[in-house]
Formats: sequence, C-alpha cells, structure tokens
Amino acid sequence: MNRQHLIDQIRNKQSYLCVGLDTDPSLIPSHLLEEEDPMFAFNKAIIDATLNSCVAYKINTAFYESQGLKGWMALEKTVNYIPSTHFKIADAKRGDIGNTSTQYAKAFLQQLPFDAITIAPYMGEDSVKPFLQFDGKWAIVLGLTSNPGAADFELQKMNDGRSLYEAVISKVSSWGTVDNLMFVVGATRPDEFLNLRKIVPDHFFLVPGVGAQGGSLEEISKKAMNNDVGILVNVSRDIIYASKDKDFAGKAGEKAASYATEMKAFLPNR
Amino acid sequence: MNRQHLIDQIRNKQSYLCVGLDTDPSLIPSHLLEEEDPMFAFNKAIIDATLNSCVAYKINTAFYESQGLKGWMALEKTVNYIPSTHFKIADAKRGDIGNTSTQYAKAFLQQLPFDAITIAPYMGEDSVKPFLQFDGKWAIVLGLTSNPGAADFELQKMNDGRSLYEAVISKVSSWGTVDNLMFVVGATRPDEFLNLRKIVPDHFFLVPGVGAQGGSLEEISKKAMNNDVGILVNVSRDIIYASKDKDFAGKAGEKAASYATEMKAFLPNR
Repeated sequence: MNRQHLIDQIRNKQSYLCVGLDTDPSLIPSHLLEEEDPMFAFNKAIIDATLNSCVAYKINTAFYESQGLKGWMALEKTVNYIPSTHFKIADAKRGDIGNTSTQYAKAFLQQLPFDAITIAPYMGEDSVKPFLQFDGKWAIVLGLTSNPGAADFELQKMNDGRSLYEAVISKVSSWGTVDNLMFVVGATRPDEFLNLRKIVPDHFFLVPGVGAQGGSLEEISKKAMNNDVGILVNVSRDIIYASKDKDFAGKAGEKAASYATEMKAFLPNR
Repeated sequence: MNRQHLIDQIRNKQSYLCVGLDTDPSLIPSHLLEEEDPMFAFNKAIIDATLNSCVAYKINTAFYESQGLKGWMALEKTVNYIPSTHFKIADAKRGDIGNTSTQYAKAFLQQLPFDAITIAPYMGEDSVKPFLQFDGKWAIVLGLTSNPGAADFELQKMNDGRSLYEAVISKVSSWGTVDNLMFVVGATRPDEFLNLRKIVPDHFFLVPGVGAQGGSLEEISKKAMNNDVGILVNVSRDIIYASKDKDFAGKAGEKAASYATEMKAFLPNR
C-alpha cells in the first residue's frame, strides 16, 4: 500500500487505529481452543469485528513463533485474511547483515503479503536497505520504543548532544523516503514528538504504547500529527482482550470503535 | 549446554569452530532439489560431514523464514538433528518489549531445542532479560557486528567517549553472567578485541566475519581468546558452499577440518 492510499484510508475512515494481533493461546477465550486453529479463529473474529474502525493490523510475530509450526500457519492464514483495504504490518523487529536482511525482506514482503515490517536499526545501513527495495512496501524502523528499556541506550546521549534515538532517526531517514520508511515512536514519552517532528516532519510514525502501556491518545495525537495525519496508533491487548468470554469479538469491536470515535475528534481539518 | 560443558567440548575437540547453516535453496546443489525437503537434506549432509570438526552450529533463521512454512519445517528438523554434543545457536537477532521477548525466548529456547539465540540490544534491559531465565541457555547479544553498517551506530561515540558498542557490552554484561550471556563481536575489526577483553574478560564471544567477509582467524584468535578459549568462530558460506556439486558435503567436511586444524595451533596450552 503506498503512502497516498494509506492517507486516503485514514481520511475516509476518520481513524488512524492499528489493531495489534498479539494473539496468545493462553489468553484467548477457552471455547476457541476446540477449533482446528484457535489462533486463526480468534484473529478472524477480531478482524471481522474491528475492520470498520481501523486502517491497519499489526501481527506480532513472536506470539506465532512461540507456537511452532502451527503458529506460523496461523500467521500465514491471518495475514492472508486481512483485506487489501488495510495496511498489514509484520511486527518482527528484524535486521541483520545485508544478505540476511534480504532474506527477511523476502520472507515478509514477498513470500507473505505484508505491507511493512518493523526493523531494529542497531546494525546500520546495510541491515535496513534491503527492506526498502519494494514498491509500496515499507520498513518501520525502531526509533524510541515505549518500554522501560528505552532508557538504557535509545535515550543515552551521543557526543554531539543528541540522544541515540535522534541520531538513528536522523541518519536512517537519509536511507529511504517518506514513501518507504516509517519510524516506531512510543506513546509513553509524548514530549519527544515535538522535537522529532523537526527532524522528520513528513514521515509516518507507528505509535505503540497506548492502552495497556499507559500512553495518552490525546496527547500523542496533538504532539505527533502532521498535515497528512502521519501517525498510526497501535492498540493490542486493550482491544483484543476486551473480554475473555464468548462475547470477545463484540467487545473488541466496541473497544476499537471507541478508539476510532476518540480519534475522529483529533484529526486535522482539511 | 552450560559453560563448562561447552569448554570441555572445545578442549576435547581442539576446535572452536561454529558452522553457520545459512542454507539458501538457490545455492545448494541442484540434485538436492529433487528431495522432499531439500534444505534439510543439505543440512543433514553438511552436519554429518562437519560434526567432528566443530563444536557449534548456527542456524540463520532468515534463510528458513524466507521459504515460508516449509522453511520453518526444515529449521525444526535441522535443530532436532544436531546432536546434544554440539552447541545450537538460533541466529535470529530478536528483541522486543518484555512480554514479547518472553514469547521469542519460548519459541527458540523451549519450543525448539536451541542452546542460544542472538539478540539485538537496542530496546534495552526488559528486551534482553527474558532470554536469561533458562538454565544452560544463553542470550548472545549483538556488540560489534562484522558488517559495514557497524560504523553507522555501533562505532559512534557516546558523550562519555565510549563507542555505543562498548556501552552496550558494558551495560548488558551487568544483566546476566558469564554462564548465560555471550556477545557477538565481528572478526572484521580485530583490534577492538584488545579493548573489549578489558570490559568482559571472561565472557564468550561469538565471532562472525571469518571467511566470505574477510576476517583473519589468526588475528582474532590471538586478540580475542581468554584462558577458557572464550570464542566461537563462525564460518558459514566458506564451508557450506565449498562445492556446489555432488561432492558438496565432502568438500564442506574438508573445509571445516582445515579450519579446525588451523584453530588447534592457536589454542592456549593448559
């Protein structure tokens, strides 16, 4: 999905919500465990119930890999089930030397029909560039993450006074364009967005950390948006585990709709 | 495999060679493509031929993921085929917020019988610690990698004058012990080992970059070893693609044996 298509989806739906499919068999309603593929059965119901309130889905690959082969099968079925109207993110945090990153890019952007994959920047340019070679496909590079560990390295100061994450976003932005590169910036440190918008005014940010992790949707919407909206806000646990009973899909749909309603009020007029 | 067991394997075999299974269906001998599982057929032959010359195998997950389900099946079969005498590394470069890293740890250190997994440190403590919770299992955290992109961030200076990679190795070493934590340090910048051994004298290093990437086995052996040997030197392409004909396994075995012979001369006496 290219940038204009994504912006159109956001404008049409008046939502910049991404639903995170962190599907954990130990947390899904127990009646689903009788299904042939419980993870996919859960995801299918969640997707059907939230489709009208969101513009993107983010599949957290760890939750599928931890189930072995059957998890990988559920991942494949899930990404193939999401309609082409929605932006599909592999939250995989990959990144390796060039010839290996090329294989990861092939895995997620060619072999599987994801629009984007999250990338760890530590290994530098040749680890990121292989993900930038596909029309309408995106690398979403970690900038400032939402977890406590962000303080260990990302927020540490470099010898020029910038934080590591600022140096990362600044340098990585020179390797791609606003059409194939986004950044992960967490909702848990909203003031950082004001500064970041000076470095990358036009890039999209994928923003985790609203919901279970405590970030404020209102605050990040005010501080991180640009004229093209420019943010996808991800919510995982707060939506998909809104109920753990038979009404789980309905409750997830209501929760997603309530996020979308809130978002509508923050969208810039045009 | 615990630290003493690994050291014993190295001493007994007089080798600290790790064979990297970066198995690419487009590079393996064409007659194998008629097998039911060409990647596993190739790996099985390579393992049989190199077993006596190495103490570890490193499976580069990217090459398996890019083949979809059948790749994941080949990965499972391969790690299960490697005998318990050998240290099994998932070269997966994972790392995410705590609850997600826990899933990756489960995937590779419990669901699959790997002894170790490589980890990207960017997201800090809660992204690394979930991998340190299993007896006899290891996190191998990226320090200084062997690729050109290492210059982009890893070698950049922090405000205290250290390189980022030094700050990473120093801080990460406080989160675990010499019994559950190793570091990736590439062979392509051998002088860095002299300094690193002051920071982490006793940790094992996993050293890629010998062979196709040009690092010198002699130089890194002299500069990186400690009294427990303390290094695993990985060679992938130079061994597994030593021949692309029907004699591929024999040639891989010869190449691995020649690395082991060279290593024997560098081992410290005791």
